[in-house]
Amino acid sequence: MFSLLLLTSTALVETALGVSPSYNGLGLTPQMGWNNWNTFACNVTEQLLLGTADRISELGLKDVGYNYVILDDCWSGGRSSNGSLVPDLNKFPHGMKYVADHLHDQDLLFGMYSSAGEYTCAGYPGSLGHEEKDAQFFARNEVDYLKYDNCYNKGQFGTPQASYERYKAMSDALNNTGRPIFYSLCNWGQDLTFYWGSAIANSWRMSGDITADFDRPDSRCPCGDDEYDCKYAGYHCSIMNILNKAAPMGQNANPGGWNDLDMLEVGVGNLTDDEEKAHFSMWAMVRSPLIIGADVNHLKPSSFSIYAQSPVIAINQDPRGVPATRVWRRQVSDTDAYGRGEVQFWSGPLENGDQVIAFLNGGNRMRPMNAGLDDIFFDSHPGAPELNSTWAVYDLWANRMEDSVASDILNGNRSSNGLLYNSTQQSYSQGLARNDSRLFGSQIGTIQAGGRLNVTVPAHGVGLYRLRLQ
Amino acid sequence: MFSLLLLTSTALVETALGVSPSYNGLGLTPQMGWNNWNTFACNVTEQLLLGTADRISELGLKDVGYNYVILDDCWSGGRSSNGSLVPDLNKFPHGMKYVADHLHDQDLLFGMYSSAGEYTCAGYPGSLGHEEKDAQFFARNEVDYLKYDNCYNKGQFGTPQASYERYKAMSDALNNTGRPIFYSLCNWGQDLTFYWGSAIANSWRMSGDITADFDRPDSRCPCGDDEYDCKYAGYHCSIMNILNKAAPMGQNANPGGWNDLDMLEVGVGNLTDDEEKAHFSMWAMVRSPLIIGADVNHLKPSSFSIYAQSPVIAINQDPRGVPATRVWRRQVSDTDAYGRGEVQFWSGPLENGDQVIAFLNGGNRMRPMNAGLDDIFFDSHPGAPELNSTWAVYDLWANRMEDSVASDILNGNRSSNGLLYNSTQQSYSQGLARNDSRLFGSQIGTIQAGGRLNVTVPAHGVGLYRLRLQ
Amino acid sequence: MFSLLLLTSTALVETALGVSPSYNGLGLTPQMGWNNWNTFACNVTEQLLLGTADRISELGLKDVGYNYVILDDCWSGGRSSNGSLVPDLNKFPHGMKYVADHLHDQDLLFGMYSSAGEYTCAGYPGSLGHEEKDAQFFARNEVDYLKYDNCYNKGQFGTPQASYERYKAMSDALNNTGRPIFYSLCNWGQDLTFYWGSAIANSWRMSGDITADFDRPDSRCPCGDDEYDCKYAGYHCSIMNILNKAAPMGQNANPGGWNDLDMLEVGVGNLTDDEEKAHFSMWAMVRSPLIIGADVNHLKPSSFSIYAQSPVIAINQDPRGVPATRVWRRQVSDTDAYGRGEVQFWSGPLENGDQVIAFLNGGNRMRPMNAGLDDIFFDSHPGAPELNSTWAVYDLWANRMEDSVASDILNGNRSSNGLLYNSTQQSYSQGLARNDSRLFGSQIGTIQAGGRLNVTVPAHGVGLYRLRLQ
Amino acid sequence: MFSLLLLTSTALVETALGVSPSYNGLGLTPQMGWNNWNTFACNVTEQLLLGTADRISELGLKDVGYNYVILDDCWSGGRSSNGSLVPDLNKFPHGMKYVADHLHDQDLLFGMYSSAGEYTCAGYPGSLGHEEKDAQFFARNEVDYLKYDNCYNKGQFGTPQASYERYKAMSDALNNTGRPIFYSLCNWGQDLTFYWGSAIANSWRMSGDITADFDRPDSRCPCGDDEYDCKYAGYHCSIMNILNKAAPMGQNANPGGWNDLDMLEVGVGNLTDDEEKAHFSMWAMVRSPLIIGADVNHLKPSSFSIYAQSPVIAINQDPRGVPATRVWRRQVSDTDAYGRGEVQFWSGPLENGDQVIAFLNGGNRMRPMNAGLDDIFFDSHPGAPELNSTWAVYDLWANRMEDSVASDILNGNRSSNGLLYNSTQQSYSQGLARNDSRLFGSQIGTIQAGGRLNVTVPAHGVGLYRLRLQ
Repeated sequence: MFSLLLLTSTALVETALGVSPSYNGLGLTPQMGWNNWNTFACNVTEQLLLGTADRISELGLKDVGYNYVILDDCWSGGRSSNGSLVPDLNKFPHGMKYVADHLHDQDLLFGMYSSAGEYTCAGYPGSLGHEEKDAQFFARNEVDYLKYDNCYNKGQFGTPQASYERYKAMSDALNNTGRPIFYSLCNWGQDLTFYWGSAIANSWRMSGDITADFDRPDSRCPCGDDEYDCKYAGYHCSIMNILNKAAPMGQNANPGGWNDLDMLEVGVGNLTDDEEKAHFSMWAMVRSPLIIGADVNHLKPSSFSIYAQSPVIAINQDPRGVPATRVWRRQVSDTDAYGRGEVQFWSGPLENGDQVIAFLNGGNRMRPMNAGLDDIFFDSHPGAPELNSTWAVYDLWANRMEDSVASDILNGNRSSNGLLYNSTQQSYSQGLARNDSRLFGSQIGTIQAGGRLNVTVPAHGVGLYRLRLQ
Repeated sequence: MFSLLLLTSTALVETALGVSPSYNGLGLTPQMGWNNWNTFACNVTEQLLLGTADRISELGLKDVGYNYVILDDCWSGGRSSNGSLVPDLNKFPHGMKYVADHLHDQDLLFGMYSSAGEYTCAGYPGSLGHEEKDAQFFARNEVDYLKYDNCYNKGQFGTPQASYERYKAMSDALNNTGRPIFYSLCNWGQDLTFYWGSAIANSWRMSGDITADFDRPDSRCPCGDDEYDCKYAGYHCSIMNILNKAAPMGQNANPGGWNDLDMLEVGVGNLTDDEEKAHFSMWAMVRSPLIIGADVNHLKPSSFSIYAQSPVIAINQDPRGVPATRVWRRQVSDTDAYGRGEVQFWSGPLENGDQVIAFLNGGNRMRPMNAGLDDIFFDSHPGAPELNSTWAVYDLWANRMEDSVASDILNGNRSSNGLLYNSTQQSYSQGLARNDSRLFGSQIGTIQAGGRLNVTVPAHGVGLYRLRLQ
Repeated sequence: MFSLLLLTSTALVETALGVSPSYNGLGLTPQMGWNNWNTFACNVTEQLLLGTADRISELGLKDVGYNYVILDDCWSGGRSSNGSLVPDLNKFPHGMKYVADHLHDQDLLFGMYSSAGEYTCAGYPGSLGHEEKDAQFFARNEVDYLKYDNCYNKGQFGTPQASYERYKAMSDALNNTGRPIFYSLCNWGQDLTFYWGSAIANSWRMSGDITADFDRPDSRCPCGDDEYDCKYAGYHCSIMNILNKAAPMGQNANPGGWNDLDMLEVGVGNLTDDEEKAHFSMWAMVRSPLIIGADVNHLKPSSFSIYAQSPVIAINQDPRGVPATRVWRRQVSDTDAYGRGEVQFWSGPLENGDQVIAFLNGGNRMRPMNAGLDDIFFDSHPGAPELNSTWAVYDLWANRMEDSVASDILNGNRSSNGLLYNSTQQSYSQGLARNDSRLFGSQIGTIQAGGRLNVTVPAHGVGLYRLRLQ
Repeated sequence: MFSLLLLTSTALVETALGVSPSYNGLGLTPQMGWNNWNTFACNVTEQLLLGTADRISELGLKDVGYNYVILDDCWSGGRSSNGSLVPDLNKFPHGMKYVADHLHDQDLLFGMYSSAGEYTCAGYPGSLGHEEKDAQFFARNEVDYLKYDNCYNKGQFGTPQASYERYKAMSDALNNTGRPIFYSLCNWGQDLTFYWGSAIANSWRMSGDITADFDRPDSRCPCGDDEYDCKYAGYHCSIMNILNKAAPMGQNANPGGWNDLDMLEVGVGNLTDDEEKAHFSMWAMVRSPLIIGADVNHLKPSSFSIYAQSPVIAINQDPRGVPATRVWRRQVSDTDAYGRGEVQFWSGPLENGDQVIAFLNGGNRMRPMNAGLDDIFFDSHPGAPELNSTWAVYDLWANRMEDSVASDILNGNRSSNGLLYNSTQQSYSQGLARNDSRLFGSQIGTIQAGGRLNVTVPAHGVGLYRLRLQ
């Protein structure tokens, strides 16, 4: 018997577990927030963080759920004479606790960064061998979240044991501080992280770094689609490359421990609107963290309305916490300039008995796609009630904010207040339980027993639907 | 020189070994029994086990050989203050020994479950670091069998040494109790278990978890057919996926140490009757444990008659203990909806000088298949007597119980008594030695020297034959 | 810079090394001899060994160079109360030293067998953890050669370090006895033996066990042609399977440390005469040990004349000790019943400045093959003298003993004396230095600068030629 | 976030790092020099080194930048009674410091060789276990550079940890001497050296040994193009084989730590002039060390003019130190005699804001190739200024020295003085900063926003261009 996911994929078993599914009680749904790296890289300052925090609040993104403001690499000023980390005072003239206080004042949470190595990836002091001291630094500065990278690791990898022990040292150190600190493990999926991540962390990167390309192969991301045990994670990995690597890994995620497909490129690069929707939808489906990678001060309206699409976020934040499964995958002949083209169908169960499905069209032209209840409930045995019921189908992108509204909010001509779902007032869990219509998109039809859902999906796009028993 | 199997595959060598082939004297033929997981998962209770035990006895399945009643995960109530495992008293109000006693009273054996990790797969306390104490718990409760899983293993895998040491700790602990306990190692084939399993265990899982599909690829079982060293075992692995992974591994099994292809899906899901026969036949051929995964209170007649087919079980329980070999394998063009289709021919020696062969048709239509004596005795040198003899051919599925009879037994309208082979009165070994006709199927013809056997095999089906010197 | 082989592949470098190329001074050319396993497996007795020794002497095979008589597994009677190995007295009533003495009396050398594991492959006591004591046993019994197998190794493999340390323990123990004992490491190529074998052993198996098939795929030998780092060595590996795996490994062999492609199947199974010649020729080319696997009391004349072909053996025993290189390899369309067919060209330098080449036709029909001096001297730069010389071409199979003569010797109607090369009177090294015509085959032509050699090679056959400067 | 290279590939981030990018302060640009191995192998003497040093100075190659004279294997005379290494006094009658002194007198630097093993590859004493003593030997003899090989390593590899620790021992020992010694790690890329090399060394070999072939497959170099984690590095690896393996690895190089693609075969073997230019250009592009492998006393004029081509060397020595990236790669149908043919486009940023691009034609005929600014600035987001500017295009091979001039210099009929770039007077960094025209080739046109560069590239050749903002 393999995994506790089986427990939650059939209706008949109880779901109570012997222990809390989260090793430290945090992350019962995937984290949401913002991280500076994809846009600003090392250009970090107090001003950037505080300004971004203000903007996140102002635009309503905090209410939508993006509550972690995460500072990536390059904040460091080295170590003090007693070995404690110190910030670069040119960048953070009031120190890190000042930032934390300001964020906390707005009910935001503060994330910081280090590396399980001699140095961080940008060459600042790393935490390998300094775990206790550095965890205390983060706790003392009231940090709520640690992204913990993998550079300069002194060859301490290559077996699961070596990687596990190295990352467990910081996990233990964070726990020892007494402060609840979300632990975001970032070892690029090295040494089969999916097998051991959830025992010591709240999320774990499972691939090399993302880039804002839908499916472009890049020599710097040398492992192909199906290499879940990639020896050279690299960077500049495309959205489809990462998604395909992640496809089997849903079975090893659970509330409190998530596969991290890397930060969102929505609004960062040159993706089409359909590509951005597909990217955001699939990250929601597999229960990846949703971390805004864009400059929120220069968001396109269409990217803003993607980040704000609460019916999709509600999939990601569904309390059941079961990542969707890729039911099938086929290569197609309408390939793009990089010779790539494929279509996929995904499905997964939700807390309230609903089911979410995604038609992913990685082909180069719009196409009809369809699915029957046997595809949707791919694990059900014949005669199961779900196969013999009528399901209402809700399009989760139906009620997307219009660009003009988004523009008005972004321009400050209109308040987001009341326009966006407010998860600080009513959590996604509560909203779902109360059938809040803002979380359910718009009904487009039904599927009868034996029937099929037929949809049209744009090139490099997605159709995302929630099925509800009728 | 590689393996002691060569000893048994040629007629001229003696078969005496320097040591007992079983590390603890148990499992000289593959274990048979029932396990709740495939149907009931975590829904376990005293009532389920005892009711199932009654039913197994009543239906005659115990007499056919299914004597282990195995309780899988989710029985635990945690650890007591002194660190000892305790059952969940809501599920097992009288404790585990009560269950053991009841099973033993009916001459059944009791199997339990733990994991070589911090937690079991469902999140209950695991036995890693508690091996001695937990082995004593199992012995004290008069447990006869331990299934020992692989979840939450703290990164202690990735080299054969790490996995071997982790599983050996429980092997030693079980031995130290003084009670004979069958040790069913379940690490999903990680770290080349076939190379070291037989030194410390009676059987070892060699793949990810089975599902009731004949050959459907599933993204959750990411390793393909030939990946005997799969880094991501997963679950929802099809019958053909597992069988093909197992094909080379027969050489590393021997009496007392068996490759475990996972529990039987006969009567569990949506397999056709031909698929269920093929599944059962091939598990018998490769000497996998035969563990009923179905709800014996709701068995289809056709599934019951498969579980009861003693001529096939007699292959599995043959005292020589040499798994059959896949002689050839070919892809075919009549593929199914998943694009898969292949045919295979298997053959293997039996204790009494007989030979068993299987024609496996994984194609999508019925087809003629055939084999000559040179295929059947694929290792024999020209001039060997077996190539120049006449062999009688017995169809091992010929005398299958009719559905009406099976229905009557299942409905309680007829006693199984006298209808099924009774291995508690006469073991398979004895029955074979005495040429008990109930173990030999029905003769359908002969093969002469230089001749061929021609048969017709249904789609996703098998032809299974025993050859006897005439 | 990679390997000392480069030293010997160009004419301009000196060949003196800082240290002896053999770690213990033995094996400066590949070992030759006989081993019982391929034919007799566990059926070993004093009588078999002594009778075989007599026959090897009588047939002249000893004089040709086959001087090690090697007893494989199954000789053991367990361990005595003081932990010392003892022979099975039913099989060896006078003990092992008695055998050694008899062999030594005929100027033969005695090889024995153990395993770097808990048990030998056939289940007798293994030497892991008993290295010192067991090495003393072998030395005390005047054993000259140890074949050291890999079964039941307690998971002590999976990294080069684990395998190296395990095999080094016996290497050290043998050295500590003070007796020169040839160390034949047999770990089936696990953990990249070619990288570390020569530091601790005289030869090392580099694949799973051989079978008497030219190129038949077998499910029990799961690694394909090019998998030099096979995780599942298996057995029933074909000649071409092993040869192709070995192709890159010549660079890691040197006098005193040889890649062992396993024992010869000449005269064992059902190979054609052309296949046997190809097998023997290629084993000679790559400097594999030449160990007779056949029953020398029941040799076919054609197999005897292969074993006795001194011009081919002189390649194997050439003192320069540089394995030939596969210059090219191509798939062909005339495939055999197993769908396999390929052609290869090999070449390598010899001590006296000669060059040996082989045309290997793995296709299913006879074919013309050819090579120019640029193929033959594939590493030479343009202008090198070897490319601008005329070379005499000698067919190394030209003067093969006729079947009638072989029959007469085998039948005892004729003495081998004077008919076969006698390497005990004049070593191959001496014979080559003296241009003994019995080692040079027969001239069939010349190749001029810019010219080509055109030959015809039978299906599953070889053309083997020595080139000499004219 | 993955790598500090991202920092330097976008314009907006600062480039200051927390620590020096070089672990020991050396190698801020790739090393240049000469090594005897490719031509002379073990034939080393004091006379060879000193004569070569004179010639390097005389020909102006020292001024062009080739300042390390590196003695490879075979210099050793063993160890003295106190365990110290001693040179072979037949080869180096005045000892090693004598050589160092002479080199230093001409402002050249002295490199020596050892192996992280029991023996060197040629069988001389290795430094494994003798790191401190041997580092002191090198420092005492005023050695400036250590090439540290991988033979006879006692199985201490197979995990990054094992290899890292073995090579770190010498890194620490060299540092402990107090003498700045360039550390050239040579473990053939085993165990993912690119991940840990820069923390302990100045450069690291990433493949098996090079041979003077453009793309010929060789059985002795068994890993294919994309096997960055090759388990059997081998030797006789072609230029294209090594380049393709290196393609992803640029992301792990930085000033002070370089991927080493092995020594240059320009002027060594039988490469065409176009092949030699392509080889040299691509080694420059990826920031490999540039180590002359030829006999400088017998250089062809065309090879000399390649080694002397300062505009190409200026790419290699660019202070920004960012290896170029392979933007795309395609197989072509005009394959060569080995069935190989592919085309590639590479691009990379330079210190002064210029960009260098290479069109690599591995096909078998001359072909037109082209690139737009979107190919050239493949990571730029739309709207980025570099995509909307006009760039002047400079051909970096335009002003190559004519053969007649090269001949005159080689023949001593003309002084190189004033004809070659003199980096000892004005470093490449200074020359670039001052826009010294000798480093910029010759302008051949411009690319406008939206336009493309069209060039014609010979078979097995390269087009190499520097783009400058106009």
